Amino acid sequence: MAYATEDNITGLAVERWATADSPRMAELMTALVRHLHAFAREVHLTEDEWLAAMRWLTETGRISDDKREEFILASDVLGLSMLVVQMNNRFGPGATPATVLGPFYIDDSPAAPYGHDMSDGAEGVPLFVHGTVRDDTGAPVGGAVLDVWQADSEGVYEAQLADVDEARLRAKYRTRDDGSYCLRSVVPLGYSIPMDGPVGELVERTRISHFRPAHIHFLINEPGYEKLITHIFEEGTRYLDSDVVFGTKRELIVPFHRHESGTAPDGTAFDTPFATAGFDFVLQPKA
Amino acid sequence: MAYATEDNITGLAVERWATADSPRMAELMTALVRHLHAFAREVHLTEDEWLAAMRWLTETGRISDDKREEFILASDVLGLSMLVVQMNNRFGPGATPATVLGPFYIDDSPAAPYGHDMSDGAEGVPLFVHGTVRDDTGAPVGGAVLDVWQADSEGVYEAQLADVDEARLRAKYRTRDDGSYCLRSVVPLGYSIPMDGPVGELVERTRISHFRPAHIHFLINEPGYEKLITHIFEEGTRYLDSDVVFGTKRELIVPFHRHESGTAPDGTAFDTPFATAGFDFVLQPKA
Ligand SMILES: [Fe+2]
Ligand SMILES: [Fe+2]
Repeated sequence: MAYATEDNITGLAVERWATADSPRMAELMTALVRHLHAFAREVHLTEDEWLAAMRWLTETGRISDDKREEFILASDVLGLSMLVVQMNNRFGPGATPATVLGPFYIDDSPAAPYGHDMSDGAEGVPLFVHGTVRDDTGAPVGGAVLDVWQADSEGVYEAQLADVDEARLRAKYRTRDDGSYCLRSVVPLGYSIPMDGPVGELVERTRISHFRPAHIHFLINEPGYEKLITHIFEEGTRYLDSDVVFGTKRELIVPFHRHESGTAPDGTAFDTPFATAGFDFVLQPKA
Repeated sequence: MAYATEDNITGLAVERWATADSPRMAELMTALVRHLHAFAREVHLTEDEWLAAMRWLTETGRISDDKREEFILASDVLGLSMLVVQMNNRFGPGATPATVLGPFYIDDSPAAPYGHDMSDGAEGVPLFVHGTVRDDTGAPVGGAVLDVWQADSEGVYEAQLADVDEARLRAKYRTRDDGSYCLRSVVPLGYSIPMDGPVGELVERTRISHFRPAHIHFLINEPGYEKLITHIFEEGTRYLDSDVVFGTKRELIVPFHRHESGTAPDGTAFDTPFATAGFDFVLQPKA
């Protein structure tokens, strides 16, 4: 091997990582070396900046635990997460588009019947979301599971709370034979990403808005269809145009109709305010 | 703002990070976004690979502490550290070249007189390193401080040991008026990088050698000269051609002469084996 110089070191490092034990690993690692070096060369990274980057990476790892995913947050605010979602979910124009999973998913939500109230007593305006799950031909997908999770009316997820006994604002609904579903919840609030860590520190040094518009997460993973991870967003809510994680899509924005009183989609009579939102999911068939 | 698509998301993210509070921060962050996205696009990063990367970064942070710098190690094995050293230390052809600092530097080493034995009782073949510190005109630099640290004869640094009372194999020597210095130590052994963490896991999936050739670290930071962080390497030692951190340079390789007995450079008489190495440092004047 030649000794490293400023000119040859990228080539030397690429040669080494090309010896990885699988072609894909070699492809990933050599591309990583090339792009990392290209970045450092383009900005002429100083030794102090390099050291600051090492410190930042270390802090970002050290603040992370099973409830806090600071590196995913970093990927989100840099637009990397949404880019990866886009590249890997190139659905047809009629299908419901995917968006980011986010850091607050909990995977063991309980099964819930049609119209079940998943709010577990969380305060807020009652919200019914209803509609259908269909395939690209318009045929209903009966028995499809909608795994749903959302923030409460103050923008807080169960995953951010200590000591929650029951599932709070998350549940798995199943469509009826005609593809219809109905969930009951409370109107969620948009929220700030956690700003007390290394990612917040970076964002604070910019004019980037650190909020997400109000939304509800859905995951639908039916045999024969591409897994769909998406949100619905409330039309007219704040931050739709400045979602800090780049997750908003026009097709996912729907009105949350406000009612002073009346009969909810599940038949419940209200003499106090409630809200309703309709959304029809269209699944992308597996290629 | 437009909603993100696969095509426009890089531009959108660049626009946002361009609002950073200093031109340099904006330059760094927008270039980072561009190169990170270019990497993900080129390899068509899958969602599973993205998640594996997030887990790897988190683990790398979590294993790090004030004694273990796993991100610096990652930067080292990817050739990034040495690239940054090269770009920021473009010395003239006559000057001693710089190489990586490495993770084992401890900054409060004690002052030591000419010829002082810094081994603190560590076993091994006694080694004397001697020579001069000069400027680019050949004039001696008297009173220059050589901050020296090295591994022991089994390849272990003080920073890797628990409960060390005295400085072990590290000291600060000062040149005499004629620029000369002399240190006494033991012959160091080349060593493996720590292989029990996330960086080792990556390296194990390649045919990359995970060793460094035997060397001694020097830091010389004199007013009027560029700070010099470098090593000397033992000529003929293993791993010179495969240094895992790309740190070897031909100008830094010197013979470690082995003597069966005789008089050492500091005047000590030996009837047992010892070694000597001569090295003359040439400092780069500040621009
Ligand atoms: Fe969310
Ligand atoms: Fe070393």
